[in-house]
Amino acid sequence: MTQIAFPPLNAERLWQRVHTLARMTRPDTAWTRRAFSPEFLEARAWLRTEFEAAGLTVTQDAGGNLVGRRDGRGATRAPLVTGSHCDTVVGGGRFDGIIGVLAGIEIAHSLHEQGIVWEHPFEVVDFLSEEPSDYGISCIGSRAMAGLLDAGMLASTNPVGETLAQGIARIGGDPAKLAAPIRQPDSVAAFVELHIEQGPVLETRRLPIGVVTNIVGIRRVRIVVTGQPDHAGTTPMDIRRDALVGAARLIDAAYRRAAQMSGTPHYVVATIGRITMTPNVPNAVPGHVEMMLEVRSDSNAVLDSFPEALLASVESALREVRVSAQAHHVSRATPTDCAPLVMDAVERAAGALGYANMRMPSGAGHDAVYAAPLGPMGMIFIPCLSGRSHCPEEWIEPGQLLDGTRVLYQTLRDLDTTLSRAQ
Amino acid sequence: MTQIAFPPLNAERLWQRVHTLARMTRPDTAWTRRAFSPEFLEARAWLRTEFEAAGLTVTQDAGGNLVGRRDGRGATRAPLVTGSHCDTVVGGGRFDGIIGVLAGIEIAHSLHEQGIVWEHPFEVVDFLSEEPSDYGISCIGSRAMAGLLDAGMLASTNPVGETLAQGIARIGGDPAKLAAPIRQPDSVAAFVELHIEQGPVLETRRLPIGVVTNIVGIRRVRIVVTGQPDHAGTTPMDIRRDALVGAARLIDAAYRRAAQMSGTPHYVVATIGRITMTPNVPNAVPGHVEMMLEVRSDSNAVLDSFPEALLASVESALREVRVSAQAHHVSRATPTDCAPLVMDAVERAAGALGYANMRMPSGAGHDAVYAAPLGPMGMIFIPCLSGRSHCPEEWIEPGQLLDGTRVLYQTLRDLDTTLSRAQ
Repeated sequence: MTQIAFPPLNAERLWQRVHTLARMTRPDTAWTRRAFSPEFLEARAWLRTEFEAAGLTVTQDAGGNLVGRRDGRGATRAPLVTGSHCDTVVGGGRFDGIIGVLAGIEIAHSLHEQGIVWEHPFEVVDFLSEEPSDYGISCIGSRAMAGLLDAGMLASTNPVGETLAQGIARIGGDPAKLAAPIRQPDSVAAFVELHIEQGPVLETRRLPIGVVTNIVGIRRVRIVVTGQPDHAGTTPMDIRRDALVGAARLIDAAYRRAAQMSGTPHYVVATIGRITMTPNVPNAVPGHVEMMLEVRSDSNAVLDSFPEALLASVESALREVRVSAQAHHVSRATPTDCAPLVMDAVERAAGALGYANMRMPSGAGHDAVYAAPLGPMGMIFIPCLSGRSHCPEEWIEPGQLLDGTRVLYQTLRDLDTTLSRAQ
Repeated sequence: MTQIAFPPLNAERLWQRVHTLARMTRPDTAWTRRAFSPEFLEARAWLRTEFEAAGLTVTQDAGGNLVGRRDGRGATRAPLVTGSHCDTVVGGGRFDGIIGVLAGIEIAHSLHEQGIVWEHPFEVVDFLSEEPSDYGISCIGSRAMAGLLDAGMLASTNPVGETLAQGIARIGGDPAKLAAPIRQPDSVAAFVELHIEQGPVLETRRLPIGVVTNIVGIRRVRIVVTGQPDHAGTTPMDIRRDALVGAARLIDAAYRRAAQMSGTPHYVVATIGRITMTPNVPNAVPGHVEMMLEVRSDSNAVLDSFPEALLASVESALREVRVSAQAHHVSRATPTDCAPLVMDAVERAAGALGYANMRMPSGAGHDAVYAAPLGPMGMIFIPCLSGRSHCPEEWIEPGQLLDGTRVLYQTLRDLDTTLSRAQ
């Protein structure tokens, strides 16, 4: 494949924007910019000026998404859209979501400076509250865009009793309009999101670019292990019914099962991340353990069967210690495939720019899931330090950000050409 | 062995006293009579009248123990002592500790009615606060009696800021005198405590009487398992360092080790009864787990080696999942042997009265541990329903209480004779 010149991007300006935005944090807990907070509103006001500096026309839609638009030559064409989110978790990082918005601004800024007009309109979106919000809902803006923010979600309240609908109105959205989708199916020519991997695979393999194949589905079940609370001093081992021993056998089996299933051929991770126990005192045999099992996979079949197969596999090991376990449904999200159109474009773009790359699933959820109904969707990953994310140590090098932004730029340019030719 | 007539005891009066005392409970949480509480003071006032009705001379010692005494023929002899405690845990039972005091009263009452005077003085003690008190100290009265309630313990405070010394003074003790033992070594001819087993062994074997051989030692260590907190969606199984998976392997190994060591020839139980974990959220790989491991055994060698041998045994299983574990000292109490003099007397008494019995260790702690330095010590167990204790469901049948009281009576009578003959 012939390598082309790197797209003209201002790496310093891009990196500087990351640092300017990072300063808009809750001062006591870096890096914290919760959606709907004063820091978030400050960031939104700043983003608006940066969108404008990049030559974009700025609007905010009914779902509270900030949208910057650059018109294309074909006035009736659906737009090429990029974007991500500028909100963070409490004590989060400076890059997760953020770089997807700022890379879009830099590309627009470069197009603006070069006076380049694409065939398609180009839009950069800062989605509202991708992270779990104080109302208990995540991906608020992208859900709203696809018409998937239902009345129940809009009625959810934050700890001070404000509903999500009121919160959206407060930041300038229009919750009354959210019964219908903000954008229709096929209203987007393509959506491409640049994001940090939030995992260690690219770093481990020393690859600068990941071509995302799908965003895994997530199934959560609550597992209850029932034994019998007893005096820890007077109850002999051979008659005690220790729920924690049963839970331990289940935890190890979940790990082994997921490890064994990984990559054959599916992406499978299983985690027991939360555990509570009663009585939970040093001198009592644990009588009751509750655990949250989370399974993520790109395979619906794996999501469907993992918890049940796990419980069946440990049945005799649990009976041996006289305890039982039951699984209760908590939630299930289906895997979302990326469009081959976009994956191919990303792969061509990375190749053309000389970046080694691999196809890989996304183990984390993203706004892109809710962009998928609107048109062909894809994602570009760049590595982050030690795979760490959602923590203050989250880090990428300026050069890695530039790599990703170049590939995003080239992917959009490729799609602009490819999609124009196709029509 | 020739069977003798059952000692003359008033079973109905004994059972009635259990129920009268049970009514002195915190009304909202049956059965709760915390030491130092109004219910406890009410119980102490009532006990005083019952001691007197049984012909005992009542005093309260400097450690807040209520002592009823019946003089013996030999004025200079050390007393035969029985007793236990009338305080309970929160939401405890009606029998744990209580029956040891009430059986002593019934024996004294019977001696009084029959006009029997033993060679030795006979004392019944209601020890102060055997259960962990609101000051964080257990076995307060029995520790004080042996001179083992130190200045640090006396300075401990309850949640409202009262020191233990102030609490002891409030109920009529004299904390200023507690720097020295209340009773000296060899000041007691023998101490025998009747108690419910608090475990299921006697019930399972359908035995009415247990002859306690020793009170197990307890070693507690805090085990810290260190992994790495990571995103549960994006961190592949083969590189995650899940502290909970490591902890699970340790928990199961602790169970298997204790089960395998039990009864060969030692009493061994091991429990991980408390666990805490961070981050403890469904979508994060657990990075840090802390657990309390409690080992109880009648063997010092087992207490000395169990946690260390356990950690060594799982080292490779933990390394396999890239986590490590360390043990930190919390506490250690040495096993306390019962005196062969008393064990033999209990066994003779049970045999003479026709009760099948077995020698067994006590997995729970008792005031008897602190009575041991004062003279030959032993304990008599009776079964309790399903081995349950420290809960409202704790239960014994009136006939089982009578069995135990008869054996206690006969044991004391036997010791009175045996010890008189020996001199």
